[in-house]
Amino acid sequence: MSLKPIQIAVDCMGGDIGLPATVTAAYQFAQQHADTRFLLVGDVAAIEARLRALGCRDSSWYRLVPASEVVAMDDPVEVALRRKKDSSMRVAVQAVKNGEANACVSAGNTGALMAISRYVLKTLDGIDRPAIATSIPNQKGGATTVLDLGANVDCSAEHLLQFAIMGAALVTALYGRDRPSIGLLNIGEEVIKGNEVVKQAAVLLRHSGLNFYGNVEGDDICKGTVDVIVCDGFVGNVVLKSIEGLARMVSSMMHAEFKRNWLSMAAGLVARPVLQRFRGRVDNRRYNGAALLGLKGIVIKSHGSADAYAFGNALQRAREAVYNGLLEGTATAVEQIRRSLSAANVQAVPPDETVSPPSSVPGA
Amino acid sequence: MSLKPIQIAVDCMGGDIGLPATVTAAYQFAQQHADTRFLLVGDVAAIEARLRALGCRDSSWYRLVPASEVVAMDDPVEVALRRKKDSSMRVAVQAVKNGEANACVSAGNTGALMAISRYVLKTLDGIDRPAIATSIPNQKGGATTVLDLGANVDCSAEHLLQFAIMGAALVTALYGRDRPSIGLLNIGEEVIKGNEVVKQAAVLLRHSGLNFYGNVEGDDICKGTVDVIVCDGFVGNVVLKSIEGLARMVSSMMHAEFKRNWLSMAAGLVARPVLQRFRGRVDNRRYNGAALLGLKGIVIKSHGSADAYAFGNALQRAREAVYNGLLEGTATAVEQIRRSLSAANVQAVPPDETVSPPSSVPGA
Repeated sequence: MSLKPIQIAVDCMGGDIGLPATVTAAYQFAQQHADTRFLLVGDVAAIEARLRALGCRDSSWYRLVPASEVVAMDDPVEVALRRKKDSSMRVAVQAVKNGEANACVSAGNTGALMAISRYVLKTLDGIDRPAIATSIPNQKGGATTVLDLGANVDCSAEHLLQFAIMGAALVTALYGRDRPSIGLLNIGEEVIKGNEVVKQAAVLLRHSGLNFYGNVEGDDICKGTVDVIVCDGFVGNVVLKSIEGLARMVSSMMHAEFKRNWLSMAAGLVARPVLQRFRGRVDNRRYNGAALLGLKGIVIKSHGSADAYAFGNALQRAREAVYNGLLEGTATAVEQIRRSLSAANVQAVPPDETVSPPSSVPGA
Repeated sequence: MSLKPIQIAVDCMGGDIGLPATVTAAYQFAQQHADTRFLLVGDVAAIEARLRALGCRDSSWYRLVPASEVVAMDDPVEVALRRKKDSSMRVAVQAVKNGEANACVSAGNTGALMAISRYVLKTLDGIDRPAIATSIPNQKGGATTVLDLGANVDCSAEHLLQFAIMGAALVTALYGRDRPSIGLLNIGEEVIKGNEVVKQAAVLLRHSGLNFYGNVEGDDICKGTVDVIVCDGFVGNVVLKSIEGLARMVSSMMHAEFKRNWLSMAAGLVARPVLQRFRGRVDNRRYNGAALLGLKGIVIKSHGSADAYAFGNALQRAREAVYNGLLEGTATAVEQIRRSLSAANVQAVPPDETVSPPSSVPGA
């Protein structure tokens, strides 16, 4: 099947590594995917130098787009948005807005990318707030998609419902999963189950027509109980970073133990193939590429520390999202669910399902 | 130094394992600590049978306290509190209330234990809500104490301040750490930094006289950046379970890789001492024993799945808390901090530090 080639705008200057990651990944990706062309955005001379270093002689797969500024990883959002109007990040997002590109990918500062994308592209009809979604490898050998990861704090039940719609559309586009299952992140056995917003969101989700599994807990992320887990951006951000922190600790402690003395180093050599297979299974570079959802355009955020392999996976996500109609899928779902809820006459707090106040402990 | 012996009431029937974990742990603990006596609460005949099986002939270290009911792991809080008034859990907590025991330890249902403890013991003066705190092994070889873990959702800034006071007193009592550092769990680089409650809590903490480090992020738990991390119980619960979920996934995947074929099994044999040392370093049984803080009595919650080794560590926490005056330390700190804040004339939202509303993206 021959598909019409798509264009991906790459912010070549973003991320901790910059050009050696971004341009290398685009070059390799183009060699493997004849259906994908690139707008390489940034310092044109530096990009050309990098392409020469890669031995690239074919210029049919890319177009160079100059941008004179770079958003630094620690630039405040205001600086990125107001002062650096010719940043590689901004120009790449603008290319999506102008219809020159079908998607854009950046490894730059998340806050800046979200603010610029939101300002330039605007949100889809029916979506109040864009959200950030990523996929975390799970025990079933797949990945659990979690959102929001920090674009929104103090979310309402309605926002959580919108995250569910966007997350489901993303999983369908990226992994071809029809009617993905949705879990609502909640707390379990302890005294008080869930806060008010989560309780109300459960009511909306139950009537939405989405494939709502019900409440899930923190350990369901790695268990792979559901395809999509929705939560407030504060919670999602803290959870994601906590998990990353533990993963780094485990990896560095394991490394230290195998380097402790010559005996353990010898054991490490023997166990190497096994350890490498293990690392491959938990390697989150495979799932690099968080999606900025709810915008009138596809924007993929690569991890700042991504190497060429990881950045290539972010490009892959952008390509899948374009070919599988992520935006159209989201828009259709928003409309369908609005109708379902309206038909069921469900509001955030329906009169028949009273929500009890945070329990004081009842008399015994 | 000879200390006056203390009494620990043990809910012998609680937890997934029950007597083989609880009674065994108490027996071993008493053999190592002449300063610690036990009230063994539960089915007296079953406890005696277990003591015989352990070969225990000395009865000087314990007193049997009958209780005719058991709180099941899946009992709703209401059932545990209202219907099972002669449960081993309730009787053990009551022993603390009556002054017969200095602390109680249970591996039973967390929600039930919190509800019963709160009902029977009441909260300390100046503490609005009790909280649950646990210690998570960190990269520095110590542990990070995190609270609340699920007793409270929808916390106010004032509640987070109280958690900080209680957490600091706990770390001082358990680990002898003077003026432990306190971090406020927040989100980082993304668009919006923190919700309103967290921003207000930071103001209170800055003026509290506590050793406030500032905001920390999810990965600081495992990094060991601070001694104590405070957060809403919803967030803490989800984070703890997410971390446990990842730890289980890593462990089971590693196990699977070393069992894959005879070659990897041989490698596993060679690497065994290294892997065991690694497991020892991340073994969270060492830190078993969550503290129910803010009550007029010391209550330690063991993990439900605790074996005798893990339960023994929960007993150790109870002993440390008693000998190091956790309750007095907390009460003194509450009073001191009340005075500091009053002297600084700080309220939750001081007039000079305006809190901006959740940012809409500013015009570029």
